[in-house]
Amino acid sequence: MSTYKRVHNFNAGPSILPEPVLLQAQAEMLDYQGTGMSVMEMSHRSKEFEAIIQTAEADLRELLGIPQNYKVMFLQGGASLQFAMLAMNLRPAGASADYIVTGAWSRTALKEAQKLGTTRVVFNGEGENFTRLPEPAELQFDPNAAYVHFCHNETIHGVEFKSEPVVPEGVPLVCDMSSDFLSQPVDVSKYGLIYAGAQKNAGPAGVTIVIIREDLLARVPEKMPVMLDYKVLAESGSLHNTPPCYAIYITGLVLKWLKNLGGLNAMYEINREKSEMVYRAIDESGGYYRGHARPEARSIMNIPFRMASEELEDLFVKEAKKADLIGLKGHRSVGGLRASLYNALPVASARALVEFMKDFQQRHG
Amino acid sequence: MSTYKRVHNFNAGPSILPEPVLLQAQAEMLDYQGTGMSVMEMSHRSKEFEAIIQTAEADLRELLGIPQNYKVMFLQGGASLQFAMLAMNLRPAGASADYIVTGAWSRTALKEAQKLGTTRVVFNGEGENFTRLPEPAELQFDPNAAYVHFCHNETIHGVEFKSEPVVPEGVPLVCDMSSDFLSQPVDVSKYGLIYAGAQKNAGPAGVTIVIIREDLLARVPEKMPVMLDYKVLAESGSLHNTPPCYAIYITGLVLKWLKNLGGLNAMYEINREKSEMVYRAIDESGGYYRGHARPEARSIMNIPFRMASEELEDLFVKEAKKADLIGLKGHRSVGGLRASLYNALPVASARALVEFMKDFQQRHG
Repeated sequence: MSTYKRVHNFNAGPSILPEPVLLQAQAEMLDYQGTGMSVMEMSHRSKEFEAIIQTAEADLRELLGIPQNYKVMFLQGGASLQFAMLAMNLRPAGASADYIVTGAWSRTALKEAQKLGTTRVVFNGEGENFTRLPEPAELQFDPNAAYVHFCHNETIHGVEFKSEPVVPEGVPLVCDMSSDFLSQPVDVSKYGLIYAGAQKNAGPAGVTIVIIREDLLARVPEKMPVMLDYKVLAESGSLHNTPPCYAIYITGLVLKWLKNLGGLNAMYEINREKSEMVYRAIDESGGYYRGHARPEARSIMNIPFRMASEELEDLFVKEAKKADLIGLKGHRSVGGLRASLYNALPVASARALVEFMKDFQQRHG
Repeated sequence: MSTYKRVHNFNAGPSILPEPVLLQAQAEMLDYQGTGMSVMEMSHRSKEFEAIIQTAEADLRELLGIPQNYKVMFLQGGASLQFAMLAMNLRPAGASADYIVTGAWSRTALKEAQKLGTTRVVFNGEGENFTRLPEPAELQFDPNAAYVHFCHNETIHGVEFKSEPVVPEGVPLVCDMSSDFLSQPVDVSKYGLIYAGAQKNAGPAGVTIVIIREDLLARVPEKMPVMLDYKVLAESGSLHNTPPCYAIYITGLVLKWLKNLGGLNAMYEINREKSEMVYRAIDESGGYYRGHARPEARSIMNIPFRMASEELEDLFVKEAKKADLIGLKGHRSVGGLRASLYNALPVASARALVEFMKDFQQRHG
């Protein structure tokens, strides 16, 4: 057990987890803290598991500074289920919701909401191949919108908001924060609802974190299936039915790791250092590597980039893999290359990538 | 790592997992088969994870003898989400569905279906405190029912069907099999849809297995949210979005363990042995312990029983815990005691319980 191989893991999600988290999970696998059980074998109503979920919530509240008038939920189904749930719960019959579309994920969120009711597209970057953010002047919101939805960071297109869109008074801001959640400080009080699939920075696949301002729970319509009903789920403390216990446990370990590291400001500094390193390598390559997003929209988490040909890109991925740099292939829907630099990715891995990029260019450029 | 404490785990779910499964998961935690990654860190589109999910499905098909015209899905949200999804997908607008209610879980499934459309209750055991199964003559089905729903084993009330209800030609049988799934052979071809939360016999909480006859996918209505749409989910091989990868991996290990043990016939023999041992202890206690379900309805998985007073029951739980027999408290909704004897519970643990019961009676009886 003392030696094991680890790679430089640039996967876009599920993605790298902090090594100390995995080591602790490994040590506790058969006997969690003297209980004689794995966390996977414990009742979700036991005092041991209640401590796990309550500590995870408390640590999340501390890290993000979540105000007291917000509820936290640990749900299932990924951000993809939230696309539908948020529309079902927060858009009353007959009302319309505003959507900002800056990439593949906000486009998918829009499609789900369109199936179930009325939407309005405030901005759509698709014509420019999702390379940029909207200018503030482009965002003319419906003052009666049920909510404004946006995606804080587009995992596939690498476009990330630098500040929240300014919405009309009284219109809740709803945000898919899946791929940059916990990568930087956030002012939660600006939001009505934040949701995030855990499998980027927060934990393993199988748990989705939803943070909702309590007053919005009054909007939940009658006769909602319980598992789609924010009110039931929030008021039960995510324990209406059996939650994804082990995924919550791992998320809790990740949150402790983040706290030990110094919290979100410290994490943000590290994430900026890693992403600046890679963007610099792109910018200084003389066009050999070409970033997808415009510089002012660049994500600190996901860096999609292209090379002159698909053959060269394939060779890049192949040689990188031989050098233990994995997960660098772009999303199947857009091709090219992508480096995801999530919280748990060590600075040394970003450095290894930059060195590999330079070396590859020297050999094949 | 070489010594660890393990208890006799009678939890009703999440519940005990086979020790070899946990040992393998522990060994592979930081480096799955030389990949340099945990299964939690692998892309769900990687060839390694595809092998994991495809092998899990193939092993499940082999164990249950699932016919080729059935699809298998690994979903999220627990059986509780299926209560709503099956009604949304399989009951066309205006149609009615028949429900057999034999305990708390089938009652909850009914409630969810009632919110969304028309239902008919064919049998309701609530007046008799859910102690029995329906007689065949009591089951007068609607020949035009969209489906007939029943719960194969009621986890809380310990009532288990011994054979499938005989439904009218052409009416699909839909079954919540959560708590006795994989405990015994099943003739899948008798069913239209089988669903089961994994956290009893199949794996950890966070994955729900759904087996559906392909022709029923034609019933899925238009404009369903993708994450609630059986057609989308079945046709994507559970990979429409990121699935609960680690829970699926553990489930795969459990399925391999079941195969090594000799499959469902061998498992059933062991489960019968364990449950007969505990029922005998109840029956031979001269009324000191009183089983909840009528003998002919008794579950081989969950054995709820009572004692003369709540004080005595509390003492039983407390002393049992001291003897490392845990999870024996009855469900909070009904009280009393409950021993869950899932697949992974060793025969030695059932024997330890029986010895403890006799000893307790001698000391306090």
